[in-house]
Amino acid sequence: MKVEGVPTRAIWREGPRVCFLDQTRLPHRVAVLRADSVEVMARAIIDMQVRGAPLIGAAAAYGVALAIQQDASDAALRSALELLGGTRPTAVNLHWALRRQRTRLTPLPAAERADAAWAIATQVADEDVATNAAIGRHGLALIRALQPRGARLNLLTHCNAGWLATVDGGTALAPVYAAVEAGIDLHVWVDETRPRNQGAALTAWELGQQGVPHTVIADNAGGHLMQRGEVDAVIVGADRIAANGDVANKIGTYLKALAAHDNGVPFWVAAPVSTLDAAVADGIAGIPIENRDADELHWVAGVDHSGQRRRVRVTPEGSPGHNPAFDVTPARLVDRIVTECGAFEASRPGISAAILAKAGEMRTTT
Amino acid sequence: MKVEGVPTRAIWREGPRVCFLDQTRLPHRVAVLRADSVEVMARAIIDMQVRGAPLIGAAAAYGVALAIQQDASDAALRSALELLGGTRPTAVNLHWALRRQRTRLTPLPAAERADAAWAIATQVADEDVATNAAIGRHGLALIRALQPRGARLNLLTHCNAGWLATVDGGTALAPVYAAVEAGIDLHVWVDETRPRNQGAALTAWELGQQGVPHTVIADNAGGHLMQRGEVDAVIVGADRIAANGDVANKIGTYLKALAAHDNGVPFWVAAPVSTLDAAVADGIAGIPIENRDADELHWVAGVDHSGQRRRVRVTPEGSPGHNPAFDVTPARLVDRIVTECGAFEASRPGISAAILAKAGEMRTTT
Repeated sequence: MKVEGVPTRAIWREGPRVCFLDQTRLPHRVAVLRADSVEVMARAIIDMQVRGAPLIGAAAAYGVALAIQQDASDAALRSALELLGGTRPTAVNLHWALRRQRTRLTPLPAAERADAAWAIATQVADEDVATNAAIGRHGLALIRALQPRGARLNLLTHCNAGWLATVDGGTALAPVYAAVEAGIDLHVWVDETRPRNQGAALTAWELGQQGVPHTVIADNAGGHLMQRGEVDAVIVGADRIAANGDVANKIGTYLKALAAHDNGVPFWVAAPVSTLDAAVADGIAGIPIENRDADELHWVAGVDHSGQRRRVRVTPEGSPGHNPAFDVTPARLVDRIVTECGAFEASRPGISAAILAKAGEMRTTT
Repeated sequence: MKVEGVPTRAIWREGPRVCFLDQTRLPHRVAVLRADSVEVMARAIIDMQVRGAPLIGAAAAYGVALAIQQDASDAALRSALELLGGTRPTAVNLHWALRRQRTRLTPLPAAERADAAWAIATQVADEDVATNAAIGRHGLALIRALQPRGARLNLLTHCNAGWLATVDGGTALAPVYAAVEAGIDLHVWVDETRPRNQGAALTAWELGQQGVPHTVIADNAGGHLMQRGEVDAVIVGADRIAANGDVANKIGTYLKALAAHDNGVPFWVAAPVSTLDAAVADGIAGIPIENRDADELHWVAGVDHSGQRRRVRVTPEGSPGHNPAFDVTPARLVDRIVTECGAFEASRPGISAAILAKAGEMRTTT
């Protein structure tokens, strides 16, 4: 997608280094970071300079390549996989990308591993771009079938599952970009997404950069807007989807799904099949939820009137905070899971069908 | 309640002036403002230096007294009522307090009006304190009847309906304070309450000042906590309650009510009978919702590391915002409305019963 008019990916290779946009500096500054070691890459994932489930997968694959170009031994591979695997507990794409590197690199002689690791990382990144384009096409079909309540179609999204959460194209926002491309007049309500403000900071910024009409709202406002008929559909991404269709996504997603259900508003989850975790039978019982530092809640980052970056404390000293980063939306509240292989029901048969479709597609392409 | 150990009301008369805590400076600074004119009082209501439906009612009553001590003419009375009546559209207590001043002052000769206006304002304030004590007693009975899921009772509240939202004692927090007083081991989850952070800034501060265990959470987190069994009941205040039991309260209340309903968690609204508006048959259709300046969303106020007060912008320049301040929770999601006259069902018969009980009580006391 475009940054100040220039087509840009959220992560890319530049010789022996991996470049990525520092998402903690957006929307106030566009800064490119360069990682030359797996440690720097792992730190960037932990600190959420790169974030978003698909992008974390690509970053982890690139991280393995950075490790292996320095030391191609079994021990170094094991240590890189362990380091990267421990960065974020909820996203399943991370583990999927690491498994892919491990499976392909382990049988190779050390001398061949560096080239192979870079090739696999590039493949993970390129596939993500193709996957998101397909999600966009399938999501566009759902958007076309909507009956807008007003003159303009209104979608609501939570967090950032846009191109910044992926290598390029976005997951939840891929259908939005496809619809705008197709000439559909639409507007996006952007949930602020406390405590890290990914909506206010990232989604608003990337929609603005692509010229998509949007309005930022507090996370509290979505229910009211749905009740008043100002939302035609909700579309969000996912960090992990269980075999029963339960969806782990950014904290607060569950509340929006409840409101959508209560008001007859379609609730769609757009995610690559790699997000589906058949090993977790029940999402509410089985998906681990990351609790992050409460300082993310106490301190808010932004820029002051002179454009200087600052953090302000909003809570009283001495008041503790609790900061779960994700919640699980029960499958019964999800109308469609939009993948690169089509839109499926959020149910055991639906999830199985998506996984089978992907397996069939992979057999066809290889 | 106590500020740094000293019993304090949120508003009080001091000779010809009205004093109140500046709630826009909390929790980082305790500042007392003094209003000597109705214009200053009206400005303080608009700017939310005083906020909370019951406190706005008292502030408006005091505002009339400030106006009348300067000019006791019919024209001045009319103009004060109009000025104060236009400050905030959603809270019904405001209009109730103004009606009370108008009804009592209009028949009086100008010379008697100033004393009467001060007397009525004091009466409004004192009654609020007594009302809240009664809400505390009735709410305590509900708390005692709960079966806590853990060792400690966990309540969740949204926004600030504590003593800072009233003259003293609080509405939603009155039962909390009564329960702590009664020796019940409880803990309060405090919703941050974007965009103005009344939970993070005010509720956390006042609970801390009274020594009540509490934890601040993002508005997004409540559904997850309820799903995990970490909330035994939700208790919130109200800005207006319609004849059918629909409840207008701070934006985001509806989302918490949906989550409570979905998880079998009791959802209580604590408010004085003056919050019930029999003239509005249907809350969703009939209660006007205030849309506030989007800058409340774009800019977050707090203090930096050195304790200096600052505002930071979190959204990109050029991204618009939309800022509805309240939403309406349908009566079907409300388990009990706790008033000074007892706990009632959120239904037409329940609301009628509460209004009749109050009328009966008023007949008894006069």
